[in-house]
Amino acid sequence: MKIICKPNVLAAALVGVVAFTPTIGEAADPLASWNDGPAKQAIVEFVKATTTQGSPQFVPPEERIATFDQDGTLWVEHPMYTQVMYCLERVPALVKAKPELANVAPFNTVLELLHGDRAAMEKLTWPDIEKIGIATMTGISVEAFQAEAKQWLAEAKHPRWKKLYTELTYLPMQEVLKYLRANGYKTYIVTGSGQDFVRVYAEQTYGIPPEQVVGTALGTTYGYAKDGKPFLTKEPKLLLNDNNAGKPEGIHLMIGRRPHIAFGNSTGDQQMLEYTKAGDGARLSLLVLHDDAAREYAYGPAEGLPDTRVGTFTQALYDEAKKNGWTVISMKNDWKVIFPFESK
Amino acid sequence: MKIICKPNVLAAALVGVVAFTPTIGEAADPLASWNDGPAKQAIVEFVKATTTQGSPQFVPPEERIATFDQDGTLWVEHPMYTQVMYCLERVPALVKAKPELANVAPFNTVLELLHGDRAAMEKLTWPDIEKIGIATMTGISVEAFQAEAKQWLAEAKHPRWKKLYTELTYLPMQEVLKYLRANGYKTYIVTGSGQDFVRVYAEQTYGIPPEQVVGTALGTTYGYAKDGKPFLTKEPKLLLNDNNAGKPEGIHLMIGRRPHIAFGNSTGDQQMLEYTKAGDGARLSLLVLHDDAAREYAYGPAEGLPDTRVGTFTQALYDEAKKNGWTVISMKNDWKVIFPFESK
Repeated sequence: MKIICKPNVLAAALVGVVAFTPTIGEAADPLASWNDGPAKQAIVEFVKATTTQGSPQFVPPEERIATFDQDGTLWVEHPMYTQVMYCLERVPALVKAKPELANVAPFNTVLELLHGDRAAMEKLTWPDIEKIGIATMTGISVEAFQAEAKQWLAEAKHPRWKKLYTELTYLPMQEVLKYLRANGYKTYIVTGSGQDFVRVYAEQTYGIPPEQVVGTALGTTYGYAKDGKPFLTKEPKLLLNDNNAGKPEGIHLMIGRRPHIAFGNSTGDQQMLEYTKAGDGARLSLLVLHDDAAREYAYGPAEGLPDTRVGTFTQALYDEAKKNGWTVISMKNDWKVIFPFESK
Repeated sequence: MKIICKPNVLAAALVGVVAFTPTIGEAADPLASWNDGPAKQAIVEFVKATTTQGSPQFVPPEERIATFDQDGTLWVEHPMYTQVMYCLERVPALVKAKPELANVAPFNTVLELLHGDRAAMEKLTWPDIEKIGIATMTGISVEAFQAEAKQWLAEAKHPRWKKLYTELTYLPMQEVLKYLRANGYKTYIVTGSGQDFVRVYAEQTYGIPPEQVVGTALGTTYGYAKDGKPFLTKEPKLLLNDNNAGKPEGIHLMIGRRPHIAFGNSTGDQQMLEYTKAGDGARLSLLVLHDDAAREYAYGPAEGLPDTRVGTFTQALYDEAKKNGWTVISMKNDWKVIFPFESK
């Protein structure tokens, strides 16, 4: 599998990590880890316009819906989506339960990979990953899945920072979530990742409760245990593919209102951002551009950044953003700090 | 179509409508239209146990989820579900747009019915009604559907009370909704009716926003108008049949947490009530029994009440409720007032 995350060496050398300590004066700024610039300004002006009584663009509190893509928008998605890492790392337990899988592709490939053969990653295709996802996340009860995912998230570390995945959220976006909520916005995650997976950590990590997580959703089946107690089993039946056109469709299904502000970072978010902007009144669509190889990653291929299959941001998406008045957030230029742990 | 709602004549003669005027002392009671009795007591005790700090059954605010069936639990469902009435009354407009349907079953039968031939109703089967639903509610944009449903709801009257359907909510249940919300519960509708239909009026009628309405859901398709503006079209593709086992499945899909308290009134609610009670800690499941032919309707067939195909409450369901400690609410005995307009 081709996962490109070549660092932009020159940029890395020039930028480095900017240490940031808030002073008393800055503490009052709800977006303190943002540099002053068009992105911060667009967000602040949008919030003022939609929440100031008497403003021509005032939005009633019950209609204040904000949606956020997750991977690459709220936290790190490179070198690989966290949920894919979860599924790969569940394979040994799966093989222990079903030893006949040890010599069957793609499970044998994953075992090689986990034993240190990094080249094995190249052999895995997206259909392989889908197959591994089905094998590791379905046919079990909702509660069993939640317990397994929770335990993994409490232990698994990101290969670059050696930190828990839940520590690798973007501080500037955490500030946006809080700022919007403080102004009466209901914040939703709208993710291509699994709805049940993201729900396991979204409340603790972002203050976003399970009922405000819209994601790719598999069906469940209601049944009874031997003692008569009912339970839900996760099934390999796709109800919602929450990517591309599936994002506005999922928003309608799960929320039933059009967002007033939406954040994404890849082509999978394009339709959500279009749908948001097509509403009446004040609407703001934003894209996070990963252009900071030193502090995080640099990938596009928009604007000459390295190409990638994980969180692709094409030049066509960049051009659409510029044409339609969407705001592109440059991680390098707009964010003083990337991660919460940097500012501690 | 067999819709039985024979009034229990003796009960009607004995009971009548009890006039009810709240006094100053009673105004402090959040459940003022409830008679003192086991149902009211169960609700009040549940709320106290789950919201009093230090109580062994205390439930953290974020986990306070309450779910309510709609038709027959929050408002009148006889002689026919409101959404079915909507679909039937949309047929003339449909035939105007597609005149070739005028002589095709079941549309011709609906036209006869609407021209006063009540016997025509007997000819309509559930598959006919499903067909009419698909024809009247899909193939149009989400916004067009919302506008049509909103207009109908502003004009259509219930055949018995000659009032808007949205006026025929149960005052005691409106009180329960407010009482639970005042105690930190998030109130959800979980209905077999169409999610999009109920969302049109739920916020104004019950204070329940669109994102807290879980219902039978059809898919939508994202597309673009000629001017490039994106929109969602309602499709005849069933995503969630929110009845029976579909209720807990829908709750998991849309909410992702198990309710602590759930209200229903028919066999379609059984699994939701089982699922609720199967959770840890304090859980309360309740069923509204329509045993008041004088003030509303009487149907079961539980407890010897007349049988019906609309909102069936079987003896088996009644027996399960009694066996499992669910609370059965008698409209006749537990409710001082049925409708908000009675107490004005």
